[in-house]
Amino acid sequence: MTINEPFHQTGLIEATQTLNRTPVTMLGLGPMGQALAGAFLEAGHPTTVWNRSTGKAAALTAQGAILAESAADAVAASPLTIICVLDYGAVQAIVGGLGEALRGRTLVNLTSNPPERARQMAQWAAEHGIAYLDGAIMTPTTTIGHSSAVVLYSGPAAVYEAYHETLASIGGTSVHLGEDPGRAAAYDISLLDIFWTSMSGYMHALALARAENISAKELLPFAQNISGILPEIMTIMAEQADSRQYPGEGSNLRSAAAGIEHIVHAAQAHGIDSSVLLAAHVIAKRAVDAGHGMDSFARLTDLLREKRS
Amino acid sequence: MTINEPFHQTGLIEATQTLNRTPVTMLGLGPMGQALAGAFLEAGHPTTVWNRSTGKAAALTAQGAILAESAADAVAASPLTIICVLDYGAVQAIVGGLGEALRGRTLVNLTSNPPERARQMAQWAAEHGIAYLDGAIMTPTTTIGHSSAVVLYSGPAAVYEAYHETLASIGGTSVHLGEDPGRAAAYDISLLDIFWTSMSGYMHALALARAENISAKELLPFAQNISGILPEIMTIMAEQADSRQYPGEGSNLRSAAAGIEHIVHAAQAHGIDSSVLLAAHVIAKRAVDAGHGMDSFARLTDLLREKRS
Repeated sequence: MTINEPFHQTGLIEATQTLNRTPVTMLGLGPMGQALAGAFLEAGHPTTVWNRSTGKAAALTAQGAILAESAADAVAASPLTIICVLDYGAVQAIVGGLGEALRGRTLVNLTSNPPERARQMAQWAAEHGIAYLDGAIMTPTTTIGHSSAVVLYSGPAAVYEAYHETLASIGGTSVHLGEDPGRAAAYDISLLDIFWTSMSGYMHALALARAENISAKELLPFAQNISGILPEIMTIMAEQADSRQYPGEGSNLRSAAAGIEHIVHAAQAHGIDSSVLLAAHVIAKRAVDAGHGMDSFARLTDLLREKRS
Repeated sequence: MTINEPFHQTGLIEATQTLNRTPVTMLGLGPMGQALAGAFLEAGHPTTVWNRSTGKAAALTAQGAILAESAADAVAASPLTIICVLDYGAVQAIVGGLGEALRGRTLVNLTSNPPERARQMAQWAAEHGIAYLDGAIMTPTTTIGHSSAVVLYSGPAAVYEAYHETLASIGGTSVHLGEDPGRAAAYDISLLDIFWTSMSGYMHALALARAENISAKELLPFAQNISGILPEIMTIMAEQADSRQYPGEGSNLRSAAAGIEHIVHAAQAHGIDSSVLLAAHVIAKRAVDAGHGMDSFARLTDLLREKRS
């Protein structure tokens, strides 16, 4: 069953499905909010929706969602409220006035925010007697309601346990990472760090390849091959980082620094902005100059956090 | 059959295998050179080896390799010479004096070097009547002789065709990329660009995760999951880069710049050097300020090469 298939046309199934299903309120109907509300409806949860601008609810109300007239009304309709909006500022603007309306209820914040913001929200929720989970959706809107969705949660285990089954309607993999409310956000931001740095490298590589008369399509299968070898290297580096032992037998910082420098020179010779890789070279070179040339690249997990003069 | 299995103990097989197999000379017996010489021996090629320091040939001569007394002697023993040493400087130091010894023979340079160096080598080879291929080994020494090896070649198609079968002893995938002798090196450097930038991002993410009390082992499965989603995104970005059309419906530069900025702030709050990602943010922000905020991230393939004031 897909989000677009209107199961409310099959009245019997609907009646069966909604029996004993926890009512859910969805605040925010951007692309992700709409996908989430659709997934709850699909799973048979009585679903109340609200958005600052009202135009976005039509497809959902056609599927059986109830459109609340205010955020306070929406929150009052369900024991569980999910909020997924643009950013932390939008969360504050909406939820800031709902402290009393949410008292005794549960709020799950799936808005992408920094760890510190998640902890502030948890603090605010505790002060208002609101059970709070902070979550991070790791996959695109198209995965919501399907097996490929990945959602991380952090906050009190009891709250996660209470609504775990309801949240499973979002589909795919649901992981509770621990009690620290900032933990899901910390995973989120660390993973986005890998993603955006990798994407920046890919863009630079495509610019360099183009300057060498290699099309992106020609480079693509080889570039994808790199994604294939990364998981094994990531495993080795992760073990080194956790043990803080950085043997450089396979590949060391000195050869990495030399290799990175060659790429920078080749790119700069074509007039390509190489500031990202140049910064990577400065870091690797600094590690070599500090006597870590024969250590593995994973030594940088230590050195990146050392204060410099 | 592995490199360590001494097939010379089975005299009959050896005699059959070496029948009509092209003699090969290997210059340079670092870890990669040793692996290459071992692969040629395994495949039954009469193999002559030479290294600037002689200590490294023992395992190979035990397998049947002939250790030449000089580089010139080594080159004279075979129609095909492979060189794989530390860098271009080492290639020059060894091959520079072999112009006459190599005349009428074929030289395949598998040393990692920049595209311009490969083109200079090809020029030098042409001046000395030497058939020349430049190659790039894309996989670790442990893959040599096995199906997982990947080697890229560029230079005259006729030379590649003449020795394609012999070079197949290196194992795995062998690709001829075209006549431009710098092409293999250009692929190599573009792919290393992706690799090292991604690795830099992974190190930074591990440092950030650690500061948030997340171990590398805990982050690992989610980090590996990102490597799993990259190939599809790479395909979309490659199509956009080649067509120079950058629709930003799925994800645009404005949201990328905002997302990157959040990561930088979170990392800097922990005292983590974020110069790599900060450079990525400057580039994305500049693109937004230039009016490309609603374009996809792949617009950067154009913008990175534009000269700035």
